[in-house]
Amino acid sequence: MSESKHTVKQDQEVIKQHNKQLVLDVIRTRRPISRSEISKITEMSATSVGRIVSELTDEGLVRETSLTSSGVGRKAVMLDIEPSGRYAIGIDIQKKRIVIGLMDFAERLITSKELKHTSQEAQAEETIALMASSVTALLEEQGISSAKVAGIGIGTPGVIDYERGVVQFSSTLGWRDFPLAMRIQEKTGLRTVIDNDLKVKILGEYLFGAAQGSDKTVLINVGTGIGSSLIINGDIFRGGSNSAGELGHMTIHPHGNLCECGKRGCLQTYIDESALLGEARKVSAIREIGELFAAVRRNEEWAVEIIDRAAFHIAVTINNIVCLYNPDTVILSGDLVEGFGEILEWLDRHCEQVVWEPFRDSFQVIASRLHGRSIVLGAGALALQQATHN
Amino acid sequence: MSESKHTVKQDQEVIKQHNKQLVLDVIRTRRPISRSEISKITEMSATSVGRIVSELTDEGLVRETSLTSSGVGRKAVMLDIEPSGRYAIGIDIQKKRIVIGLMDFAERLITSKELKHTSQEAQAEETIALMASSVTALLEEQGISSAKVAGIGIGTPGVIDYERGVVQFSSTLGWRDFPLAMRIQEKTGLRTVIDNDLKVKILGEYLFGAAQGSDKTVLINVGTGIGSSLIINGDIFRGGSNSAGELGHMTIHPHGNLCECGKRGCLQTYIDESALLGEARKVSAIREIGELFAAVRRNEEWAVEIIDRAAFHIAVTINNIVCLYNPDTVILSGDLVEGFGEILEWLDRHCEQVVWEPFRDSFQVIASRLHGRSIVLGAGALALQQATHN
Ligand SMILES: [Zn+2]
Ligand SMILES: [Zn+2]
Repeated sequence: MSESKHTVKQDQEVIKQHNKQLVLDVIRTRRPISRSEISKITEMSATSVGRIVSELTDEGLVRETSLTSSGVGRKAVMLDIEPSGRYAIGIDIQKKRIVIGLMDFAERLITSKELKHTSQEAQAEETIALMASSVTALLEEQGISSAKVAGIGIGTPGVIDYERGVVQFSSTLGWRDFPLAMRIQEKTGLRTVIDNDLKVKILGEYLFGAAQGSDKTVLINVGTGIGSSLIINGDIFRGGSNSAGELGHMTIHPHGNLCECGKRGCLQTYIDESALLGEARKVSAIREIGELFAAVRRNEEWAVEIIDRAAFHIAVTINNIVCLYNPDTVILSGDLVEGFGEILEWLDRHCEQVVWEPFRDSFQVIASRLHGRSIVLGAGALALQQATHN
Repeated sequence: MSESKHTVKQDQEVIKQHNKQLVLDVIRTRRPISRSEISKITEMSATSVGRIVSELTDEGLVRETSLTSSGVGRKAVMLDIEPSGRYAIGIDIQKKRIVIGLMDFAERLITSKELKHTSQEAQAEETIALMASSVTALLEEQGISSAKVAGIGIGTPGVIDYERGVVQFSSTLGWRDFPLAMRIQEKTGLRTVIDNDLKVKILGEYLFGAAQGSDKTVLINVGTGIGSSLIINGDIFRGGSNSAGELGHMTIHPHGNLCECGKRGCLQTYIDESALLGEARKVSAIREIGELFAAVRRNEEWAVEIIDRAAFHIAVTINNIVCLYNPDTVILSGDLVEGFGEILEWLDRHCEQVVWEPFRDSFQVIASRLHGRSIVLGAGALALQQATHN
């Protein structure tokens, strides 16, 4: 009913794209299917359906099969999707490692490989070169021509300008205003889309993992970085400039710890890995976070206190997120839940106390199911989505 | 690309509804327009366009005009919407007053009136009877037959089950599990949709007020109640069970003030009207909130301190909301900004300190423009939307 909605909806190009996506969706879910059945279901004219099917066939996404429709006796050429007609590359860039995966048009992961890198600003070009050559090698190994590759999807930590393909700011990678998508595209010749790793991750969990069947899901990542993302009815929630979900700098204690960002009381100063390590090292000379978890499992009081306090703050955060987003599912991912799965029980206990009563039974808290693979899968799916939307 | 999205998209009824809405949108924005032009723009078959236009004409939403298309010389019957073909009632229920408005199909407010009531559980039936008789009287006065009324839209504070039309919980009205929509529908014979008042309010601001032209807008209400809502590209953000935006019980001080809900540190205990009055009455025997604002304007230190502390906590809340929602506009509404508009400058100052730097220039904070009328307008628009979607 709103005017701006009308303007968007009635835009010729938008309608055309919607119709093309609709036809492809109908083929994907009702295959094999004839042109006239598509026309009937979508209410589109035979001419328009014919044109769109031709486009999809030319693009290798759809093929005619030899099947004929049963029923009234008239034979019709049936349409199906072509899994090997299109591929996508999904890439997960983290601080110390990069994972590259190959996905087909049926969204199956064909193969993947892991690379080591040093993600510092000075080495950005080396990282780009490494990724580009690895993508090329992967396609060669699999005997797939780059003409069949829809594109590359990349998930990486930080504030990502999704529209322009720029890493605006990533403290994890040490990059600022870096045109990652363009640089990869130049080196590989493949269309590249980049997004914040947690947005891609929740797409992966939604399509293939813990969030399947839930359509209002929040993902909270707790580890070296803190962040969140939200998916609603299959759409990643992006906010105004693709930065929705920047959990780490939410204020949880208005007069609390000083954060690296200059503010006081940011959530990350209470629950991220370096906060937990900092607390632990006041008591014990541990080197890495696994030693803290081990101490908790030995029931050492100092370690129990640290993790309990973190669980309390995560529960408070869950309350705050649930109040604003009202999800039906909260997925916990990251090093904390991967290294110390017991945290879920601790969270349950704290949530009983700190979640507003009307919301207490409105959502479940579960662990990420795909762990390492969710970003690669989500990034590949994102690249495929982009391809069919253009 | 996701399976559940496909299932939704390809559902025959969903497609039919989408197509009907699309045709109506095209008529609304390109009127006058011919059937064949609609067919061309939407790519829909002439048969489908013809059927939908007949439905819309039968429903009195669209009419044929005597105009003919210029150009190729062939005369075509042109279509236009019919402003007086359909009306809707918008109702704003607050603690002590109810406002009822009449809106036409062009979304113009024709008339409105205000009623007093006492919103206690015991009086719920009296309130229902009062509203129903007022709606009937309003339509009679205007000489509008109820057959021409698409329905009633109601905005009211609390946790509202939008799908089922039930006020699940409203501390403002003292109602719990009250089937408001059904009761009004029984009394008036008019289809009734209810929603949380702030969700309806932001729809009003988006269509007619401060949020026009912004499509990622958050509304924060500070007064006797605390709450928020979000609109994205014209769609109200509802979350999993229509309860997104329940700001009042976000935890802002994990070990802070005890709230009526039993939790500690809820936002409302720092910024709602009764919190401010409670603080003020430790110092001065004021009766109502306006006296606090007056004392601030006289620069009395105790009053300045109270409002400054509230502004600080609102700014912290803005940071937290901006981190999660990433809006381009934050609208402040409610008694505080209506009674003390200067608060916006105080907020600016605090936001400089407490908003995470990467977000600091990503949004504007403005005051609600429609004040009292936004809920009535939004509720009427919601009722019209419902009517054309079915
Ligand atoms: Zn910070
Ligand atoms: Zn509370």
